[in-house]
Amino acid sequence: MSPFAAENTGAKNLGTKNPGARIVVPVALEGRGYEIHIGRHQLCEAADLIAALAPGAKAALVTDERVAALHAQAFEHCLQLSGISAVRIEIPPGEASKSYSRFITLCDSLLSAKIERNDLIIAFGGGVVGDLTGFAAAVLRRGVRFVQIPTTLLSQVDSSVGGKTGINSPHGKNLIGAFHQPVLVIADTALLDTLSEREFKAGYAEVVKYGLIDDRDFFDWCEANWSRIIAGGPERDHAVAVSCKAKAAIVARDEREEGDRALLNLGHTFAHALERLTNYDASRLVHGEAVAIGLALAFRFSQRLGLCPGQDAVRVAAHLDAVGLPSRLSQVPGGAGSADEIVTAMGQDKKVKRGVLTFILARGIGKSFIAPGVAAEEVKAFIETELAAA
Amino acid sequence: MSPFAAENTGAKNLGTKNPGARIVVPVALEGRGYEIHIGRHQLCEAADLIAALAPGAKAALVTDERVAALHAQAFEHCLQLSGISAVRIEIPPGEASKSYSRFITLCDSLLSAKIERNDLIIAFGGGVVGDLTGFAAAVLRRGVRFVQIPTTLLSQVDSSVGGKTGINSPHGKNLIGAFHQPVLVIADTALLDTLSEREFKAGYAEVVKYGLIDDRDFFDWCEANWSRIIAGGPERDHAVAVSCKAKAAIVARDEREEGDRALLNLGHTFAHALERLTNYDASRLVHGEAVAIGLALAFRFSQRLGLCPGQDAVRVAAHLDAVGLPSRLSQVPGGAGSADEIVTAMGQDKKVKRGVLTFILARGIGKSFIAPGVAAEEVKAFIETELAAA
Repeated sequence: MSPFAAENTGAKNLGTKNPGARIVVPVALEGRGYEIHIGRHQLCEAADLIAALAPGAKAALVTDERVAALHAQAFEHCLQLSGISAVRIEIPPGEASKSYSRFITLCDSLLSAKIERNDLIIAFGGGVVGDLTGFAAAVLRRGVRFVQIPTTLLSQVDSSVGGKTGINSPHGKNLIGAFHQPVLVIADTALLDTLSEREFKAGYAEVVKYGLIDDRDFFDWCEANWSRIIAGGPERDHAVAVSCKAKAAIVARDEREEGDRALLNLGHTFAHALERLTNYDASRLVHGEAVAIGLALAFRFSQRLGLCPGQDAVRVAAHLDAVGLPSRLSQVPGGAGSADEIVTAMGQDKKVKRGVLTFILARGIGKSFIAPGVAAEEVKAFIETELAAA
Repeated sequence: MSPFAAENTGAKNLGTKNPGARIVVPVALEGRGYEIHIGRHQLCEAADLIAALAPGAKAALVTDERVAALHAQAFEHCLQLSGISAVRIEIPPGEASKSYSRFITLCDSLLSAKIERNDLIIAFGGGVVGDLTGFAAAVLRRGVRFVQIPTTLLSQVDSSVGGKTGINSPHGKNLIGAFHQPVLVIADTALLDTLSEREFKAGYAEVVKYGLIDDRDFFDWCEANWSRIIAGGPERDHAVAVSCKAKAAIVARDEREEGDRALLNLGHTFAHALERLTNYDASRLVHGEAVAIGLALAFRFSQRLGLCPGQDAVRVAAHLDAVGLPSRLSQVPGGAGSADEIVTAMGQDKKVKRGVLTFILARGIGKSFIAPGVAAEEVKAFIETELAAA
């Protein structure tokens, strides 16, 4: 028996729509709590839940052109069965859609569709769709409810949970946005079957992250089960559920990132710098790949500082290597840049103040902590060693 | 002795900056409460309060070109005395600045000025500056604190209090925005000395509104003291303070307009229609003038429905006439349009659903209530009578 069977509802093949087993993770936020429903073939169930949330309301289904081609008709069919007529709004796929101009177009499309305060906006896509749509929902008529239906592993385990929404400015990523919690998240893990191997693995880096933050048992389990997570068995649902639970617990403690929520940035200070230095060019490095390198670096940096046992840093990198994710700066296609360039790129991060960086470091696997006083010089010396070792 | 002396702090001419007497009105919102400071020559006091709110923080001072020419240097001098170096950002005056494009420009100016999450944004101007700046503050880095220093009577008694921020879309006014409470409001009533008579009186319509909603004594007092409010004596401070208190009480009960806050729309369903029909052309009709006509209409409509004594409806109109505010549709320069046009323009209001309007009606002066089921036909018949009587 798998280690997670006890968490399933056992509600297999209920009714005529044949949904798979479903795991429900609550996000406990005073007055704004909601549920994450995880499982295979949940779209028709989702439609029923949406209909129950807003009887008689109109809905707007915001999606990108790629997701629309694969899944929109099936989902719209479910919505119709549940009595919801939804207006479909498509955006171009890719980070470029998190722009001021796309935000304006989306807001005006929602207004043209006469979406009112009591209606619902559904974000059906990956992180770009979720972040942009969530932000539009946050500010349309000063706030309309929205539902997240993430279609990538990355968005199922990270961006769809926790209410961070936003768009990019020429000054940087996610600089314009809002905390706006969804009223429901549906993580249909069967949708992930259509992801490319590269995209799936990139999302997997964020799954591993939750083990590294504070759940060594989960990391152990990931090491043993990662191929089954990719294959799409119940292990995939379990991995998504554990990730969502971990994120939900942190968000419930610290919704607006005034403390603990920063732990979710494990590996991300390095990752953001690498993304910046590769010009956010997805053909070179996608976010999850940058995070994978960042996780390995965070552990080796913690080891160098005498905080973390060397064997843990080695295990982290070995697992990323086994999965086929990068774990070293030398694996950045086209090169990551010099130590100076990397530290300068880190300096543009929101978490830097006057040459002192706030880092997430680790005393071992599952023992991460917030380190607010890391000198940029120390980081630079570490990166130089990393670059020399390559 | 004036009826309001007991409410003053008596802190006249304290220190070297010679502020006038100050009235402090608290806005009681769980975890987000703040104070409104009302009095003459409060700018240097304001700078001290701002410095205390955010020691060592940077500040951005957003203002319009007209206000800047009159008051910015004086205020910046006060900020310097308090140790705050503020970056000034000027926007063109007028409703056209509540646009998507101005919003983007403002956000990018704030980012260029390196305003961080712990810094402060100061809105120094009328309703346009406050609404636009408040919205930018709401979404910049997912929320930066902001201070309202309203410079018009209308914004001192209405828009600066309560946290409604927003911009216009081609689909309508204030359709994109956020609830984002300021951390401090400074209503320096000496700034109002520079307003034109027309602008001052337009703001006065919103003052009268608070008496009409639920404070008959205040309406009585307004009838007796309106000329002193305009002249700028302590009566002006009292009028602003009573208005802010009334609004603060309603906002504390119903921050997000799910109930009682709708009372603040007394006269506004008519007013918004008239503004729409005059194309928001300030040379024809400004918001406060439209509200004045709307207030008189709301009372005559309530009288026609048998709800309100005729003498109260007459008193409302007589007071507006005495002050020099319009109270009849015939006073709309260029004409208000036909009854059909007016009802159709009302139909575009957020508060209309399938031919049934939510109106604020009155059982008398100080006895307003929310009437959710008013038939458009009944409104149309009333407007026809009004137009025929002109």
